[in-house]
Amino acid sequence: MPRFALTIEYDGAPFVGWQRQANGVSVQQRLEEAVAAINGGARAIVHGAGRTDAGVHALGQVAHVDLVRNWRADRLRDALNAHLKPDPIAALSARRVGEDFEARFSAIRRHYCYIIDNRRAPLALALGRAWHVKRPLDAEAMHAAAQALVGRFDFTTFRASECQANSPIRTLERLDVRREGERIEIETCARSFLHNQVRSIAGSLEHVGSGKWRAEDLVAALHAKDRARCGQVAPPHGLYLVAVDY
Amino acid sequence: MPRFALTIEYDGAPFVGWQRQANGVSVQQRLEEAVAAINGGARAIVHGAGRTDAGVHALGQVAHVDLVRNWRADRLRDALNAHLKPDPIAALSARRVGEDFEARFSAIRRHYCYIIDNRRAPLALALGRAWHVKRPLDAEAMHAAAQALVGRFDFTTFRASECQANSPIRTLERLDVRREGERIEIETCARSFLHNQVRSIAGSLEHVGSGKWRAEDLVAALHAKDRARCGQVAPPHGLYLVAVDY
Repeated sequence: MPRFALTIEYDGAPFVGWQRQANGVSVQQRLEEAVAAINGGARAIVHGAGRTDAGVHALGQVAHVDLVRNWRADRLRDALNAHLKPDPIAALSARRVGEDFEARFSAIRRHYCYIIDNRRAPLALALGRAWHVKRPLDAEAMHAAAQALVGRFDFTTFRASECQANSPIRTLERLDVRREGERIEIETCARSFLHNQVRSIAGSLEHVGSGKWRAEDLVAALHAKDRARCGQVAPPHGLYLVAVDY
Repeated sequence: MPRFALTIEYDGAPFVGWQRQANGVSVQQRLEEAVAAINGGARAIVHGAGRTDAGVHALGQVAHVDLVRNWRADRLRDALNAHLKPDPIAALSARRVGEDFEARFSAIRRHYCYIIDNRRAPLALALGRAWHVKRPLDAEAMHAAAQALVGRFDFTTFRASECQANSPIRTLERLDVRREGERIEIETCARSFLHNQVRSIAGSLEHVGSGKWRAEDLVAALHAKDRARCGQVAPPHGLYLVAVDY
């Protein structure tokens, strides 16, 4: 059966997250319904590279699926999009891949971006697309402190208690914080992340930006390897899965 | 009675437009309700600089209102925002102005931006925030052709038939088209615009970008001074009132 890799954009707001769940509609479910509709009714599992939580957005999620027949890549993309309407999920591209391609396990790097809109006024156009933080944040202090998290560490402090990964050790390749006007963007990439890792780091960096934490407090939290020392978990709607490298 | 100027951001999607109307909720109505709530119940008209149509967004609409008592500007902004929830309208700032300040008539320049997302795949995150155009557009050709509209002209071709302005003559100070990846931004400014002028120009420039029109066709349409020669009116959800200068 021919295998295809799909690059997918979605607005996370209306979904219970990437993964199929009993309590609501997931991105995976809607994709699998679209696949069944073009696959002669045959059900097929759509395997994603990153299991984004409820409310988390994707600009470039990647998934693979096995179909009963071969497709021209652009036709497959268009056919899936026709069946994804009117949900805010879009197949940006499709490409034929080998049977050894696994969206999750073949990935060598995942890129995430966390967006904070830092202003007094509520968000109107960015409502549900960024974390609204009213108190002024020092993005330069956040960036400087963040560099202590770049590298290979035990990230137990920044890992959800329900995280199912075997090891809490991960290697952050990059963690950059920069401000453009009222917007602060936190960009990070790694081979893989722990559950809630980016949101836990973003929430803790917010403490540094507001002055509640010094840079040393962030380092101490990391080295404590204690979930209770995480500053806070930033809300899901500021998080974007930007791209997956293979 | 002290007069205040407000700078306002809104998502145009849920509203019938800026102006109060019998057939639905307008941005003006919601602002006037918020004003009444903080103004001891006294009704006051909120006068906007630009009467944006249904679905059109604003990053920096400006309005003025007379209140029964004086306010600290930041307190006024915060109080209005508290009463605007949960609608996607935000008062970005308030400032005390003189009685000669009129949001509409004191304005010396209005800035609009029209956004086109030019790609095959449907929009997910930008749904309702940009015009989705599937056929490839040549943004450089659009920009080159657009320069013929910069200056003082009779814009009858690019004016809604229901436009109530006395004169169809306007002076476009700038009309720039540039592409960044899949996104095309059309930026324009003028002392004032005719009803549907920016959307009529954006729709006609799309014809140039797709190759349906040559640059000469755009010039001929302008000089025809004939509404029937307008290429098309671009949809409202791609348009943003960016700023108003005084």
